[in-house]
Amino acid sequence: MDGGDPAGPGGRAGTLRQIGELGLIARIRRRLSPPPPDVLVGVGDDAAAVAWPGGILLLTTDTLIEGVHFRRSTTPLRALGAKAMAVNLSDIAAMGGEPRVAVLALSLPPDAEVADVDELYAGLADMGARYGTALVGGDTCTDPDRLVLTVTVVGRVEGLPVRRSGARPGDVVLVTGTLGASAAGLALLERGWPRDPAVPEAVGEALVAAHRVPTPRVAEGQQARAAGATAMIDLSDGLATDLGHIAEESGVGATVRLAALPVAGATRQAARRLGEPEWAWAVRGGEDYELCLTAPAGQAAALAARITAETGTPVTAIGEIRPAGAGVTYLDEAGRPVPVAPGFEHFR
Amino acid sequence: MDGGDPAGPGGRAGTLRQIGELGLIARIRRRLSPPPPDVLVGVGDDAAAVAWPGGILLLTTDTLIEGVHFRRSTTPLRALGAKAMAVNLSDIAAMGGEPRVAVLALSLPPDAEVADVDELYAGLADMGARYGTALVGGDTCTDPDRLVLTVTVVGRVEGLPVRRSGARPGDVVLVTGTLGASAAGLALLERGWPRDPAVPEAVGEALVAAHRVPTPRVAEGQQARAAGATAMIDLSDGLATDLGHIAEESGVGATVRLAALPVAGATRQAARRLGEPEWAWAVRGGEDYELCLTAPAGQAAALAARITAETGTPVTAIGEIRPAGAGVTYLDEAGRPVPVAPGFEHFR
Repeated sequence: MDGGDPAGPGGRAGTLRQIGELGLIARIRRRLSPPPPDVLVGVGDDAAAVAWPGGILLLTTDTLIEGVHFRRSTTPLRALGAKAMAVNLSDIAAMGGEPRVAVLALSLPPDAEVADVDELYAGLADMGARYGTALVGGDTCTDPDRLVLTVTVVGRVEGLPVRRSGARPGDVVLVTGTLGASAAGLALLERGWPRDPAVPEAVGEALVAAHRVPTPRVAEGQQARAAGATAMIDLSDGLATDLGHIAEESGVGATVRLAALPVAGATRQAARRLGEPEWAWAVRGGEDYELCLTAPAGQAAALAARITAETGTPVTAIGEIRPAGAGVTYLDEAGRPVPVAPGFEHFR
Repeated sequence: MDGGDPAGPGGRAGTLRQIGELGLIARIRRRLSPPPPDVLVGVGDDAAAVAWPGGILLLTTDTLIEGVHFRRSTTPLRALGAKAMAVNLSDIAAMGGEPRVAVLALSLPPDAEVADVDELYAGLADMGARYGTALVGGDTCTDPDRLVLTVTVVGRVEGLPVRRSGARPGDVVLVTGTLGASAAGLALLERGWPRDPAVPEAVGEALVAAHRVPTPRVAEGQQARAAGATAMIDLSDGLATDLGHIAEESGVGATVRLAALPVAGATRQAARRLGEPEWAWAVRGGEDYELCLTAPAGQAAALAARITAETGTPVTAIGEIRPAGAGVTYLDEAGRPVPVAPGFEHFR
C-alpha cells in the first residue's frame, strides 16, 4: 500500500494495521482543515513551524513507551531520560533550529522507586542543558504497569526552517556522522550483550552507548541551514525510510551509493561477527539521529566543510537527488541496484 | 505527609506511592537546576512561562490514559479528543493567556479502527479551532493495548501571566461557572447511566456531557488577568486540592463558605438522588475546569462583573484569603469548619 490510504479521506479504511503509520499521517494531513496562514509547517515534517512575534517558533513532540521503544531490563533510566530529550532536540535540529525549552509528560506505576525517577529527570535535564534547553514543566500521572515519556520541545529558527520538501534534482545527498551504530548496539543487546559479548568489550560498549543515548546534531543542523541546505530530516527510522520522506515530500527520486555510506569501524566489526551485510544497519537500522540533508551540487562540498569546521562532525556525500518517478535506489560498487526494504513503521 | 518528601532532595525516598504526585512535583522542583532567567514560570504552575522575542510564551502538556483517566466503554472518541485539547487550553486560560498551537502524541493498538481515530482527531481539531488553536503536528505510535493521548499547547500572554503564587490575605476567592457537574456525571456513569438513569434523562445528559467535554475558560482567564486577578488556577483536581495549591504557592490560608459554592440545579438534583452532600462534588470532585482566582477585596466585584459582561459566564465569590498557617477551611452555614479530604492525587 506504499503508505497510502486506499479508502480516501471519507471512506471506511479498516484498521491502523492496514494503513500503517504513514497512511495514518497522510490521512490526518488530508482531513485536518487547512492550517491558518501563520502555520508555516504543519503535520508531516520533523517539527511544526509557526510565525510568532519576534521570529519563527518550532514545536515537536515524541513519545517513548516501555515495551515498544525500550525495555526496562536493558535501559538505564538516566540514559532513557537523555534519549527522550535527545530525540526531540534532533527534530528541532533537522529544521535548522535552536531548541529552547521542554516539557515532560511522564506516566509510571505507583511502585516506581523515587531514586529511579530522579535518574530519569537527571538524564533529561542534563541532555537539555547541554543544548541550552531547560525543562520547564510537565505532567505526571499513574500508569498501572508501564513507563511512558512524552517530551515536547519548543525552539526557534533564524530565517526560514529547512523542510523535507526542498530537494531538487541534481542536489547532493549528505549525512552527518556515521550510520548503523544504534542498530548494531540494539542487535548486541537483543543477543544478550554483555552476557554474550560477540564483539570486544570496548566495541560493544561504544555501540550500545550509541543506541542508548543518541547525539542530537543541533549545531550541525544550524550550520546546514545557514549554508543553504535545501532539505533536511533526522534519521530516526533509518535512511531507507527517512530519505524516502525527503523524496516523497520533494517530489523527487534519489540514488545512494552503498559503498559511500559512512559506517564506523566498530559497526563494521559487529556486522561481520553477526553476519549482517556491512551496509544493512546503515540503511535500514533506525535511531542514529544523524541528519540527512541535500544541497545543490555546487555548494555541497563547501557546506560539508563548513559543518565539519564549525562542529567537528564529519559530513559525507552519499548520493544524488534524481527526477521524480525513480524512487530511491541503492547501488552497489558496480552501480547495480540492490533491493532494500523500508525501515521501521508503527502499526505494521 | 502533606505532599512533602521526607527524604529530601538527596535521600532515599522509597516509592511514588509513598510521596504521592505532589511530593514528586516538589522533589522535581528542588532537584532541577535553577531555571535560566528567561524562564519566568517553571515546574509547578498550570503552564510554564518563558520570555520570548515578541512576548511571553506559555507551554503546557497533559496526558489522558485509557483505564486511568477514561474508559473506552463510556467515552465516545470525539469527546475524548475534545477533552484532551480542552484540558490543555484550560491550563493556558489559567495563566490568562491565549492558546495558539497544539501537538498530539498519540499511541494506540494496531487494531484500532481508522474511523475511530478520525473521530478522535476531529474532536481535537474542532475544540482547538473554537479557541483559535491549530493542531500543527505530533507523533503516532503503537501501544499494544491502550489508547494514550498527550496534548501540548503553546500560547502567549499579553503582559505578565497570572500565577498561583500571587494571592494575598484579604483577597476574595472567586470561581467561574458552576462546580461539581463533572463529578456528578462521572458518578452517574459509574452507576451505569443511561442503563440506570437515577435522574431524569435531560439532567443526566447535561451532567455526563459536562464530564466528557469540559469548557475551557479562555476568554474568562484573559479578562481576569486584564482586570487584576492576583492568583489563578484551573479546577482539574477539585477545589480542595487546587485552592490548596494557590494557598501553598502564595504562602497563605483561605476560608470557603460551602453555601456560597455555585452548584447547578442538575448537580444538586443528582446529589440528592445519589445521597451525596450538595457541596461534596463541588469541593472534592475534579475536572470541572472552571477557573479559581483571587482578587483584592476592593476590585473583586468589578472583576466578576467584567468577566460576566464580556463572556456571559457567571463568577461567584466563595471565600477569602487568610494569613498563612490556617490552611484552607471550609465553613458551613453556621460558620463551623467542615472537614474536607483532599481531592484526587496520582500515585496515592
